Amino acid sequence: LRNGFPEVIYCAGKTASEVEAIMTEMLKQDNNILATRASKELYQQVKKIAPTAVYYERARLIMIEKEVIAKTKSKLLVVSGGTSDLAVAEEAALTASALGIKVERLYDVGVAGIHRLLGNLDYLNEANVIITVAGMEGALASVVAGLVDKPVIAVPTSVGYGSNFGGLAALLTMLNSCASGIGVVNIDNGFGAAYLASTIILQLEKARKEG
Amino acid sequence: LRNGFPEVIYCAGKTASEVEAIMTEMLKQDNNILATRASKELYQQVKKIAPTAVYYERARLIMIEKEVIAKTKSKLLVVSGGTSDLAVAEEAALTASALGIKVERLYDVGVAGIHRLLGNLDYLNEANVIITVAGMEGALASVVAGLVDKPVIAVPTSVGYGSNFGGLAALLTMLNSCASGIGVVNIDNGFGAAYLASTIILQLEKARKEG
Amino acid sequence: LRNGFPEVIYCAGKTASEVEAIMTEMLKQDNNILATRASKELYQQVKKIAPTAVYYERARLIMIEKEVIAKTKSKLLVVSGGTSDLAVAEEAALTASALGIKVERLYDVGVAGIHRLLGNLDYLNEANVIITVAGMEGALASVVAGLVDKPVIAVPTSVGYGSNFGGLAALLTMLNSCASGIGVVNIDNGFGAAYLASTIILQLEKARKEG
Amino acid sequence: LRNGFPEVIYCAGKTASEVEAIMTEMLKQDNNILATRASKELYQQVKKIAPTAVYYERARLIMIEKEVIAKTKSKLLVVSGGTSDLAVAEEAALTASALGIKVERLYDVGVAGIHRLLGNLDYLNEANVIITVAGMEGALASVVAGLVDKPVIAVPTSVGYGSNFGGLAALLTMLNSCASGIGVVNIDNGFGAAYLASTIILQLEKARKEG
Amino acid sequence: LRNGFPEVIYCAGKTASEVEAIMTEMLKQDNNILATRASKELYQQVKKIAPTAVYYERARLIMIEKEVIAKTKSKLLVVSGGTSDLAVAEEAALTASALGIKVERLYDVGVAGIHRLLGNLDYLNEANVIITVAGMEGALASVVAGLVDKPVIAVPTSVGYGSNFGGLAALLTMLNSCASGIGVVNIDNGFGAAYLASTIILQLEKARKEG
Amino acid sequence: LRNGFPEVIYCAGKTASEVEAIMTEMLKQDNNILATRASKELYQQVKKIAPTAVYYERARLIMIEKEVIAKTKSKLLVVSGGTSDLAVAEEAALTASALGIKVERLYDVGVAGIHRLLGNLDYLNEANVIITVAGMEGALASVVAGLVDKPVIAVPTSVGYGSNFGGLAALLTMLNSCASGIGVVNIDNGFGAAYLASTIILQLEKARKEG
Amino acid sequence: LRNGFPEVIYCAGKTASEVEAIMTEMLKQDNNILATRASKELYQQVKKIAPTAVYYERARLIMIEKEVIAKTKSKLLVVSGGTSDLAVAEEAALTASALGIKVERLYDVGVAGIHRLLGNLDYLNEANVIITVAGMEGALASVVAGLVDKPVIAVPTSVGYGSNFGGLAALLTMLNSCASGIGVVNIDNGFGAAYLASTIILQLEKARKEG
Amino acid sequence: LRNGFPEVIYCAGKTASEVEAIMTEMLKQDNNILATRASKELYQQVKKIAPTAVYYERARLIMIEKEVIAKTKSKLLVVSGGTSDLAVAEEAALTASALGIKVERLYDVGVAGIHRLLGNLDYLNEANVIITVAGMEGALASVVAGLVDKPVIAVPTSVGYGSNFGGLAALLTMLNSCASGIGVVNIDNGFGAAYLASTIILQLEKARKEG
Ligand SMILES: Nc1ncnc2c1ncn2[C@@H]1O[C@H](COP(=O)(O)O)[C@@H](O)[C@H]1O
Ligand SMILES: Nc1ncnc2c1ncn2[C@@H]1O[C@H](COP(=O)(O)O)[C@@H](O)[C@H]1O
Ligand SMILES: Nc1ncnc2c1ncn2[C@@H]1O[C@H](COP(=O)(O)O)[C@@H](O)[C@H]1O
Ligand SMILES: Nc1ncnc2c1ncn2[C@@H]1O[C@H](COP(=O)(O)O)[C@@H](O)[C@H]1O
Ligand SMILES: [Mg+2]
Ligand SMILES: [Mg+2]
Ligand SMILES: [Mg+2]
Ligand SMILES: [Mg+2]
Ligand SMILES: [Mg+2]
Ligand SMILES: [Mg+2]
Ligand SMILES: [Mg+2]
Ligand SMILES: [Mg+2]
Repeated sequence: LRNGFPEVIYCAGKTASEVEAIMTEMLKQDNNILATRASKELYQQVKKIAPTAVYYERARLIMIEKEVIAKTKSKLLVVSGGTSDLAVAEEAALTASALGIKVERLYDVGVAGIHRLLGNLDYLNEANVIITVAGMEGALASVVAGLVDKPVIAVPTSVGYGSNFGGLAALLTMLNSCASGIGVVNIDNGFGAAYLASTIILQLEKARKEG
Repeated sequence: LRNGFPEVIYCAGKTASEVEAIMTEMLKQDNNILATRASKELYQQVKKIAPTAVYYERARLIMIEKEVIAKTKSKLLVVSGGTSDLAVAEEAALTASALGIKVERLYDVGVAGIHRLLGNLDYLNEANVIITVAGMEGALASVVAGLVDKPVIAVPTSVGYGSNFGGLAALLTMLNSCASGIGVVNIDNGFGAAYLASTIILQLEKARKEG
Repeated sequence: LRNGFPEVIYCAGKTASEVEAIMTEMLKQDNNILATRASKELYQQVKKIAPTAVYYERARLIMIEKEVIAKTKSKLLVVSGGTSDLAVAEEAALTASALGIKVERLYDVGVAGIHRLLGNLDYLNEANVIITVAGMEGALASVVAGLVDKPVIAVPTSVGYGSNFGGLAALLTMLNSCASGIGVVNIDNGFGAAYLASTIILQLEKARKEG
Repeated sequence: LRNGFPEVIYCAGKTASEVEAIMTEMLKQDNNILATRASKELYQQVKKIAPTAVYYERARLIMIEKEVIAKTKSKLLVVSGGTSDLAVAEEAALTASALGIKVERLYDVGVAGIHRLLGNLDYLNEANVIITVAGMEGALASVVAGLVDKPVIAVPTSVGYGSNFGGLAALLTMLNSCASGIGVVNIDNGFGAAYLASTIILQLEKARKEG
Repeated sequence: LRNGFPEVIYCAGKTASEVEAIMTEMLKQDNNILATRASKELYQQVKKIAPTAVYYERARLIMIEKEVIAKTKSKLLVVSGGTSDLAVAEEAALTASALGIKVERLYDVGVAGIHRLLGNLDYLNEANVIITVAGMEGALASVVAGLVDKPVIAVPTSVGYGSNFGGLAALLTMLNSCASGIGVVNIDNGFGAAYLASTIILQLEKARKEG
Repeated sequence: LRNGFPEVIYCAGKTASEVEAIMTEMLKQDNNILATRASKELYQQVKKIAPTAVYYERARLIMIEKEVIAKTKSKLLVVSGGTSDLAVAEEAALTASALGIKVERLYDVGVAGIHRLLGNLDYLNEANVIITVAGMEGALASVVAGLVDKPVIAVPTSVGYGSNFGGLAALLTMLNSCASGIGVVNIDNGFGAAYLASTIILQLEKARKEG
Repeated sequence: LRNGFPEVIYCAGKTASEVEAIMTEMLKQDNNILATRASKELYQQVKKIAPTAVYYERARLIMIEKEVIAKTKSKLLVVSGGTSDLAVAEEAALTASALGIKVERLYDVGVAGIHRLLGNLDYLNEANVIITVAGMEGALASVVAGLVDKPVIAVPTSVGYGSNFGGLAALLTMLNSCASGIGVVNIDNGFGAAYLASTIILQLEKARKEG
Repeated sequence: LRNGFPEVIYCAGKTASEVEAIMTEMLKQDNNILATRASKELYQQVKKIAPTAVYYERARLIMIEKEVIAKTKSKLLVVSGGTSDLAVAEEAALTASALGIKVERLYDVGVAGIHRLLGNLDYLNEANVIITVAGMEGALASVVAGLVDKPVIAVPTSVGYGSNFGGLAALLTMLNSCASGIGVVNIDNGFGAAYLASTIILQLEKARKEG
């Protein structure tokens, strides 16, 4: 994307020694490094070869920052429903931040108590791109997209049980929203939502320069 | 339920002559008669043996009223999202009416333009029971249930396409709602929603008398 | 709902320290507190900050009662099929009780031995609202709804194996019942059933007063 | 099975001329002939080459009887729920009859009005094998199997809509029944149920002779 | 069924102390007792209150025999595909035996090496009822039913991976078999297959007496 | 969005007279009008009240342009796989055009002959936003997203048969892409893809002005 | 593949004039032409521009042969279960023939009467590659693959009803076969099976030359 | 297949002592032995009775080579997408090798960075048969099959999360590929892919000899 744009490792399904091998190679370059879906145990091991590595437990992210990356002028808002969606919301917010994006958060604004969302319309109005993270039935995405005319990236989470079928309920909600302007990513894919946001914001930053 | 409570025929999958035979039998009694899922052709034929029969095309209902049924004191509100949900919403509203219930309608208040719903909170506040009818992703049910502390009966409709899978998306939404207080009926089952509402309102009318 | 109506925490997917933080905040108020889907370990920890907390192991509920809540005149009946459905049935019954509702139980009346149910029709006749909890194929809901003209709230449970698909079989049964008057909640959602019952009974109590 | 046991043609997915060709071949033998899933149009054409052919419209069966087949001593009972299940129930009953089995029918005894079934226990008690045909949620099979200690063959029908998913709801019900002693066949497979019954009754007739 | 017919406990989803309580009650009677889906740990505990209890590890069954039950004249054959299906095949065979049925076994005759099955047709010919147990794609049931004119009870097992979807592949195979005469039970339900077989064989034994 | 931004009618599931009524209302304003999922018959009727209406048969769109809308500086590229995907691709391209966006098309570049896509990288490089429309297995979206660092909006189409399950195969492909930067819309939702693109391009145009 | 290898048009989802346009272009070359999924009406129209076109109704194929293509030494066997699978089996056999392959047919050898297959082992033994076409439960593929050590290409067909789910049952059977050596193609994809066979046989013909 | 062709044990779902018993029997013969889906613990135990056994951890294979098997002239290429697919890719490559096939590997050529695949076309061109192993959306199979005219065996892996549904996404992709010439095996079935490849290569080796 820009200077400082990190290299990314997806740790799920890789052994610690595999991740270590990939990272050792990456550490020879000057890029920042972002490792997603990383357990605390993996972090302990990574720390031995990269002492400056920082761990975000809730988001299961390891970050190694070699170069400070200037934040974009364009702003991303991450909106989420309940406490249980925080892991995914933070994966999105911290990834976006690592990708150099200015990020704001509006958490705990689920539709069961819609007045909290309606009382914070300023957040929605000031953002250029919005990521909505929601589990259960995922109705938050529809409500947010109905309130704004901006790109809304919707992340269904696997939070729920029974006929939720591991996030399927929220996924179908987001794909079938009666409000237009929503692009959906995979269940629990906070990383992917942030990455998609970054491709939009890269275009925005270019447009600012080009005029 | 009460005096005037109609007998009901479910016409889907029955031939015209089968419906006619059942109705001929019923017409010997004094009960009102309600026929659901009735085509216009069926109505033409029914009219021959029951000249006072009335047809509600959108709701696909035939009604034969022999005895005027006094309306309940308790009030049912039928809320719906889009124009395409009207057939099911009207099946619910007219069935409830035929069951002797006082019915109000609040239509075209989908979450894509949530201010229309929020601008009509009086309707929600004055009802004893609410039926929400919604297709696509069915988020309306969650929003309504989040706004009130009353029984909400949710009817998913088969309105939509693609990953809607014939109403599955809205059904899962309603079963997984983050707002509590929702009882769900089958996809497109406006009749069933009205019937469930009538069992609640029967209890309410009794409670009024008993104190 | 009424005085004494508890605040509720859904513990699944929250860490013990998150639950503790939320509870500490709640304990500053005078409300009763109900925590659902709580493990025994969580209870041990909660006990440290709320020594009067009571734990219902089978139902996985923690209750903290600060104010005694008077029971309603209206009566809720919780009906269940087999021993394995008890966890969900008790989640419903104890939640309803915590919400201030007069609750009766009719357990172990599955359709494999239908005479036990038929021998207890008094229970069904005396209730204002009925919750039926059933796993396997969930036929109990249909049979109960066929016997009464009252609101029946149906809770499918995930009890079963193979083509049960985690409760899907019972869920579909309840949604497609040939007996009308059933409102369905999510698989294993005993809490939601009780909450929906409470919204009905709140209306009943009001109606008693209003006449 | 026995003398007079018919040859069977499954007409779905075959052109009229293909059926005709197969039948012409069969007519050279002395066997009775049974054609399932046959339309009225097909029957008209068959009549030209087999003038004694009889058509059962509801069951979509064509029968050509060359040899009268003596009925078994063992008795099959076909039980069904609603009017809409009649096509499948009759496919089962008439097929069984064509296979030489003594057949009784107990129709319109769905669980929504369970007293009709309970008032006819004699039928259940006098049968050797029972076929239950039910659509919607298919709970009838569970209730019947709970009342008897005989082989129950369950046929789910595709009667229903929405989350019925073409008979899936009834199929899952029957496979997951809390009452044991049920063997399930494919959705709408009245023929297969009758055939399975005939294999049981063939064993019974043999056992009568062997002692 | 007959004298000596055992009482049955389904242990899945019951705690050891719940099973113990039920058994203590049962032990006051003279009936044999059969406990299905029982772990080795459970057996250790049961042994303390019922020292004559026997455990069949592969089939996960506990049996307590108080009265020796005479075997039937009619014969049940249990056929199975691979080694991995043995747990379910033995649940069926041992349950049937506990129900007083004469049982034979024909194991390891999967269709990948069909000559082993074809070389053992005598087994098929001498049985009155056949249970086929098969996982993976479950084709064994079709082949067996194609070879005989007897009731075939088919048990799909959850053996397999990937698109097997926990036994769904074998289940659908058995429901859609091109060979008629198959009654299907739930995935892994060896008990249910044996129980269904026992209802057929009960009829056979009666027929022998009646003539 | 901007001056000239049209009002939109979704015609599926509305009768001709309902569409006419809505349009008559809209025609009183100065806005352009876009009607999606419109049949040729509907167009004939619309023409009577709006003689300047233009019909795009393949895309099933009716457009009524009252005000010429200046095209954006930012560019949208619509990429599609096979001839059968054209209806959806054109729905996207023409909708975007009606929303005032500069649109280019790159059609018939499916992955079965990947060199056609690779020979047209200029198109990809010059666009600000890309919509990929693909049926069958939908792999085109992954390949395109792997080649660029721009927002890719993926539209699965229902083109295919058998295990395609009405577009499910392509939908899952797009949600699970190993290439990041993809936002997915519903199956066949060309309109929604264009609308999402317009929300991004609106931000781009603003950014150009703001700098 | 080789000289004479035809160009292929997949007609489903294309209008007659689109097919005509593509064909007019192709007719300028010397290649043979094969059009799949072609209706009789389409053929009538094609005949006008290509008078030598031949139509195979059952297989829904149009062939235009400009150059006679010499048949391969390697042999393909197409095996099928029932009459209803013929359309797909012929699509495979005729496509393979058009691709220059020596083809044999062994039809009507379903597992319900396995002796017909076992009585024709010579066909299996003399082929280099085998295509098995089967609907219902599709067990034929397992049995064939168990009998030979050759590449078996399995084509599930959509023949069946109820829990067949449009060919899903046969598809899962073939993917989960306990016999190894099976490569599966999409439901009803006779063309694809023939094409895959041709890639194998192309390698065989090359190997014959290379030694 | 040929001299040295190993006997194969599928270890999943077998206890260590069952595997040991089977192996003890096999070790009496001179065949090589291949055990798939074997854990490290199982290997430790096998080593005691077969000290020359070798374990491939990533592929979960145990091999016991008694006779060195000469490699084929025909060549198999195993292509895979990401690091996480290695277990399955190696199961395929090592199995093929144990079956006597000359094997090459082209790993880490996923479509997210398609230039790595395009830069290695020589590998594709020199192979006789190709196995593609891919998880996530599995698009690799389509791209490879689009580039060559050889038999492509596609193995979907269960690598992924959310709407991947345990490999279903990749499976559907491969079955619906717009590129022809693909035979699909079960999810994660590296063994089956290698076995299918060996049946093709056996034919090739024969063809070389026959000419
Ligand atoms: N949580 C995630 N979900 C999906 N894709 C991811 C995730 N994290 C990283 N990725 C993608 O995976 C790539 C790295 O994959 P790998 O080479 O297997 O480590 C990155 O470049 C990202 O595009
Ligand atoms: N639209 C409907 N959907 C579901 N159930 C219905 C509907 N209309 C009527 N019913 C039920 O069907 C019963 C009549 O069924 P039947 O005897 O088959 O006509 C009524 O008593 C209702 O309980
Ligand atoms: N493995 C099993 N699968 C399905 N049903 C079973 C099984 N074992 C026992 N049962 C049934 O469960 C009943 C006992 O259930 P419960 O009262 O819950 O222990 C028995 O009478 C059987 O009908
Ligand atoms: N019946 C069929 N099923 C699947 N793919 C087919 C079929 N017939 C032809 N094809 C493929 O479709 C291609 C032609 O597609 P099209 O260019 O859309 O006509 C051929 O080259 C084949 O690869
Ligand atoms: Mg919006
Ligand atoms: Mg509420
Ligand atoms: Mg009722
Ligand atoms: Mg019984
Ligand atoms: Mg048979
Ligand atoms: Mg990209
Ligand atoms: Mg083989
Ligand atoms: Mg190719």
